[in-house]
Amino acid sequence: MNYIEVFSKIYYELEVSNDPGKVASYIPELRDVNPDKFGVHLTTIDDDHYEFGDSDEKFSIQSIAKVLALVLAYKLEGEKLWKRVGVEPSGTAFNSLVQLEYDLGIPRNPLINAGALVICDILVSKFENPKQEFIQFVRKVSDNPDIDYCSRIANSEKLAGYRNAALINLIKSFGNIKNDIDVVLDFYFNLCSIEMSCKELSRTFLFLAAYGVCPYTNEVIISVSKSKRVNAIMQLCGFYDEAGEFSFKVGLPGKSGVGGGIVAIHPNKYCIAVWSPRLNKKGNSNMGMKFLELFTTETQASIF
Amino acid sequence: MNYIEVFSKIYYELEVSNDPGKVASYIPELRDVNPDKFGVHLTTIDDDHYEFGDSDEKFSIQSIAKVLALVLAYKLEGEKLWKRVGVEPSGTAFNSLVQLEYDLGIPRNPLINAGALVICDILVSKFENPKQEFIQFVRKVSDNPDIDYCSRIANSEKLAGYRNAALINLIKSFGNIKNDIDVVLDFYFNLCSIEMSCKELSRTFLFLAAYGVCPYTNEVIISVSKSKRVNAIMQLCGFYDEAGEFSFKVGLPGKSGVGGGIVAIHPNKYCIAVWSPRLNKKGNSNMGMKFLELFTTETQASIF
Amino acid sequence: MNYIEVFSKIYYELEVSNDPGKVASYIPELRDVNPDKFGVHLTTIDDDHYEFGDSDEKFSIQSIAKVLALVLAYKLEGEKLWKRVGVEPSGTAFNSLVQLEYDLGIPRNPLINAGALVICDILVSKFENPKQEFIQFVRKVSDNPDIDYCSRIANSEKLAGYRNAALINLIKSFGNIKNDIDVVLDFYFNLCSIEMSCKELSRTFLFLAAYGVCPYTNEVIISVSKSKRVNAIMQLCGFYDEAGEFSFKVGLPGKSGVGGGIVAIHPNKYCIAVWSPRLNKKGNSNMGMKFLELFTTETQASIF
Amino acid sequence: MNYIEVFSKIYYELEVSNDPGKVASYIPELRDVNPDKFGVHLTTIDDDHYEFGDSDEKFSIQSIAKVLALVLAYKLEGEKLWKRVGVEPSGTAFNSLVQLEYDLGIPRNPLINAGALVICDILVSKFENPKQEFIQFVRKVSDNPDIDYCSRIANSEKLAGYRNAALINLIKSFGNIKNDIDVVLDFYFNLCSIEMSCKELSRTFLFLAAYGVCPYTNEVIISVSKSKRVNAIMQLCGFYDEAGEFSFKVGLPGKSGVGGGIVAIHPNKYCIAVWSPRLNKKGNSNMGMKFLELFTTETQASIF
Repeated sequence: MNYIEVFSKIYYELEVSNDPGKVASYIPELRDVNPDKFGVHLTTIDDDHYEFGDSDEKFSIQSIAKVLALVLAYKLEGEKLWKRVGVEPSGTAFNSLVQLEYDLGIPRNPLINAGALVICDILVSKFENPKQEFIQFVRKVSDNPDIDYCSRIANSEKLAGYRNAALINLIKSFGNIKNDIDVVLDFYFNLCSIEMSCKELSRTFLFLAAYGVCPYTNEVIISVSKSKRVNAIMQLCGFYDEAGEFSFKVGLPGKSGVGGGIVAIHPNKYCIAVWSPRLNKKGNSNMGMKFLELFTTETQASIF
Repeated sequence: MNYIEVFSKIYYELEVSNDPGKVASYIPELRDVNPDKFGVHLTTIDDDHYEFGDSDEKFSIQSIAKVLALVLAYKLEGEKLWKRVGVEPSGTAFNSLVQLEYDLGIPRNPLINAGALVICDILVSKFENPKQEFIQFVRKVSDNPDIDYCSRIANSEKLAGYRNAALINLIKSFGNIKNDIDVVLDFYFNLCSIEMSCKELSRTFLFLAAYGVCPYTNEVIISVSKSKRVNAIMQLCGFYDEAGEFSFKVGLPGKSGVGGGIVAIHPNKYCIAVWSPRLNKKGNSNMGMKFLELFTTETQASIF
Repeated sequence: MNYIEVFSKIYYELEVSNDPGKVASYIPELRDVNPDKFGVHLTTIDDDHYEFGDSDEKFSIQSIAKVLALVLAYKLEGEKLWKRVGVEPSGTAFNSLVQLEYDLGIPRNPLINAGALVICDILVSKFENPKQEFIQFVRKVSDNPDIDYCSRIANSEKLAGYRNAALINLIKSFGNIKNDIDVVLDFYFNLCSIEMSCKELSRTFLFLAAYGVCPYTNEVIISVSKSKRVNAIMQLCGFYDEAGEFSFKVGLPGKSGVGGGIVAIHPNKYCIAVWSPRLNKKGNSNMGMKFLELFTTETQASIF
Repeated sequence: MNYIEVFSKIYYELEVSNDPGKVASYIPELRDVNPDKFGVHLTTIDDDHYEFGDSDEKFSIQSIAKVLALVLAYKLEGEKLWKRVGVEPSGTAFNSLVQLEYDLGIPRNPLINAGALVICDILVSKFENPKQEFIQFVRKVSDNPDIDYCSRIANSEKLAGYRNAALINLIKSFGNIKNDIDVVLDFYFNLCSIEMSCKELSRTFLFLAAYGVCPYTNEVIISVSKSKRVNAIMQLCGFYDEAGEFSFKVGLPGKSGVGGGIVAIHPNKYCIAVWSPRLNKKGNSNMGMKFLELFTTETQASIF
């Protein structure tokens, strides 16, 4: 299928510059992004490429990186990982803290902030130098030695990070954080600061469309079963309070970030990454979600 | 694939009679079921059949019927249905009432009790005689004129139904129930009283594996897009607090009932129904879930 | 002290007709009350009387009657009453349903709706004809045979009472309602429909300022200890989410109703009743609370 | 009245050594206290003294100190203090975090941890050296230059203080903490580390029974109105989830600490302090509460 024509057609329908959404504004590095940026990149498991717009421009992938941290922790820990974090959707954001209390410090899933903090704690326990080990893992998966943290963003996140500090202290009060809070938070804020372009994103996550095998190196990143389970978690928990909406309208497992990026997986077919910085009220890229909805409708292809 | 061998192999691994789960006991009709019953029936979209155990014995399908009520209401109302009920997973059961208050009487999704009550209210508004119209719809979908309500079970549900009465009164206090409470509750309790065998269940739900088309009559029950969306809702909301667990381990959209039944859909492939009356702590069939986990592992087939 | 001068002085400070509050509007009988009505009546334990404004006009005392139901149930049941209802303040209204779930159907205190419903259930269990027995008790306490229910108001309450129906069904699902729901609700809605003037109110509740003894008949209504405990419950739970505010500013135990009435007790001194129909956002009489704040400031008399 | 005889009589009824409660164990300094310790000291506003048992032995007053911090902040800030903290009881402990979210970072009252942290933040803003200024204030109020912090306890609290760190970070994320988190927490943990005997406690808090005037120096600590309001806050919020229970059974404003101390005020009469280290499930001194219940029953004296 000629995806580029589909991209182009949908893009002109969307009228991105009239998007009523708002760019994330809690740190200057996100606030100052040009809100009209728009990029798409689709990579098939046979390494065919389709791109459109600002698909080569790097942006802050933010929470999308949590999936990669999950993959690495799951690979290293196996199923005993699930003693420290659940696999259930989280319900409303409103309930995040009360649920943590109700569940005695076990976050509902690894893709909400609380869960990602526990994943970071696990990686901090595993490695002497977790930041370095993690970025090397990402570079390997993406077959790209240039992927890196952005220390300016990591620092800004730290200055605005009182809510994450509240979460990690609460989890630690239940004993589910083993390391020093400042070390784990530093790793977490670096994780969220990684920058990629749509092209890099879709290449990096392609192994989840290929049952865990990196298509560039044929290396097994994680097992078939684990790869499917990571996709299942994205399907149920990848969009905060809008996981249902995304599943309902797009019908693919995916993950969003407040930088305006979304990555979605069609197992055994492709990985697609979209970037549009304005967010809807739930914190997901407004046009990114609409684009993917029209895309799976147009191509009549979803997992359901 | 010879599914029957797979069924048999898994069944002997499970040791159903040692299942630590408990049969539902809030009404006599469920409490008195033989807990060792076990049946499976798989129907492919080409109408091949594979069955095992007590697959021809009728049981109370309970909440599984909510999917059929949703399908009928969605068919009749179209997308404006979603003004009255959401498509998001519900988080913990513990929060059900507080979420209804927080969301001003809009239930999180149509498969939790609160949402199914709103769906019932919609059908009561649509039909002069909703119970009769609904069962005729089910008979048509299942190509089976013998499917019926069980009035004994419906009456028992009514006598034990204070929690559902609390929910519907709360929703009505927000204006999201339009009809008389007793009429809607009567329809709801009848809906939950429908009895089917595994064979009937897997045949009835096969249209959701066939993109909305009834394979026996070639009639379009609902559109492709609506069929996919119903599957997406089952994926995210079909197992109460365990939707994540089921997605993670089984990897198919599905729906359970407290009678011990589970129906699951592999789009474009098959519909499978399992029955094992003992429930786990979340109210889902304990062996039914385990069976399906081993089945999708063994056959290496899930949507992820 | 010449209380009447104090009443008059405060009344002119208040500018009742500029009150930004709103009259309760969920039933016509409350909505149609003249919002500028204002009355006060203070009765000392020596039976001195001080009145001002519309102090002889009857209005709907609503939730104030819950204190009288509590007194009668406490008198009959003694301390075992507290197995079925707590004595703790309820926190935010927002949490009312979740708290009932968390506390397994035991309402936090007898003055919130949930608790008053349990008190009504207890009285329904005690009497053949609870409505008649209760009104006779109120007539005895008030030394006034004319006090009565208003059936028009009770009927209107019933038609608007979905939230109370939700509460009582939820409590019944936990087993803490023993009688038929419709019978208990009928008693409850009648209880809330009682009409009194400020004069009648302050005379009726005077026994709580007199350590449980009815000053007109010298009959012991309840023991000293029980009388003090009822005052303590009013102090902590008498004003919904504003119990703290009332304690802080007025410093007396009291109880409000959505009809705009407030009754407050100065133990061993007096009982005062105020009526001003406009309510603040928490559902308490706006000018009634302000009047009592200025009154205890002016007379330098509170229990603290 | 000869209070000492009453003390003695009640003490022998209580059988302190059979108390099923548990000494606080989250820090070694509290865990290692002799659980059979028991002391009482009552000081009347005329400076009569009645003591019993270990009334001269110092213990950690813990949260009781929050009242003194409130008094100092209220004195300095006046009524604008209430823009940053409420005066309502908090309902269940379970809800503490969700309420803070619901109320956008405004704690329900100044005696729960969240509220005391805001009070500490206010004092940190007011003083160059808040720890020194505060202890001087306490020494002045108590007319006792020996009152001091215990740095060993403060350090232990800090090491176990993840939950308080979670609270203060959450409040800061809403903008209701103005200073550096570590500075405020250091002040808070020191505040909780103050040590006093029952004798010192009852002398220190006597000004709240004397309408704000220090009986030893005749200095006005706070105004009559503020003193009454602090008592009202203690009445509604002084015992966590058991404020209602304490009001109901004891009928005096008071405050407890996890060190096993309780101070209670009878306005215009006396201040009484009790110490018994074993706590009930709500975190209040088990025998301390029972002792005060029997004491106000025996002396027939409560504010209600």
